[in-house]
Amino acid sequence: MDQTVDTLPAMPGQRLARGVCRALRGMDFVTVEELVPAPGLRVDVMALGPRGEVWVVECKSGRADYRSDRKWQHYLDWCDRFFWAVDAEFPVELLPAETGLILADPYDAEVLRMGPETPLAPARRKVMVQKFARHAATRLQALRDPAAFGSGAGWV
Amino acid sequence: MDQTVDTLPAMPGQRLARGVCRALRGMDFVTVEELVPAPGLRVDVMALGPRGEVWVVECKSGRADYRSDRKWQHYLDWCDRFFWAVDAEFPVELLPAETGLILADPYDAEVLRMGPETPLAPARRKVMVQKFARHAATRLQALRDPAAFGSGAGWV
Repeated sequence: MDQTVDTLPAMPGQRLARGVCRALRGMDFVTVEELVPAPGLRVDVMALGPRGEVWVVECKSGRADYRSDRKWQHYLDWCDRFFWAVDAEFPVELLPAETGLILADPYDAEVLRMGPETPLAPARRKVMVQKFARHAATRLQALRDPAAFGSGAGWV
Repeated sequence: MDQTVDTLPAMPGQRLARGVCRALRGMDFVTVEELVPAPGLRVDVMALGPRGEVWVVECKSGRADYRSDRKWQHYLDWCDRFFWAVDAEFPVELLPAETGLILADPYDAEVLRMGPETPLAPARRKVMVQKFARHAATRLQALRDPAAFGSGAGWV
């Protein structure tokens, strides 16, 4: 497997997510993309911090992408802090003041405003860390050993 | 990234580990390889079950490989169940009776004997699930975005 090619992700939101994940790694947070915390919900980036902190980052490529999001408030129930990640062109005045804000590009990102902390209950945190672990390990196995995943095999 | 090539891992133990991980996936366990539970220890396979079970599987390619293992008893402190994974040629009478046994090849595996259950204390289970999550997510990011990892970057 060629690990040296640096290809940009196809979608604008995925490119922001890549920069976000790189920056979070520098903050000692590990990350996964497109985790499903509950049926019908799918977060762009879920991050797990060194003390078990759970952050959600939604990546918005522009005004229309943000305006069409009907679900973001549901994500608040599944994390300790919630952030938007946008590029330098995004009209940040659209975003609710009580959310976190990350300025991102495909190569890096910077936290401009921390989201307020609303700590998960211990039982839910335990569930989320397990979901995170299962998500990450399943996708890792799929990359390391694709033959383990038949065409009909679903994700966890 | 080419996800269709099915190349055998280089080392005999890694080939057994691949079959073990495939079989565990069929039991709804997710897996990582070469996790470090504590300094100086490195398990071949750590598996996380649907109810948060933590299993360790040590893969032994032959008698010499098993005889040279001085650390396996330390792994018992970091899991709910411990297993050996060996191939059909392995002299299984060498293995302690009070451990689990998995018959494996590079393509699949079968649990022949469950290891006795010695449940982790809740605080240690929490630590292990977080370690598992961090290990899996870091390696997943390294495969998805190798450029995020400079030459000097260490694993978590």
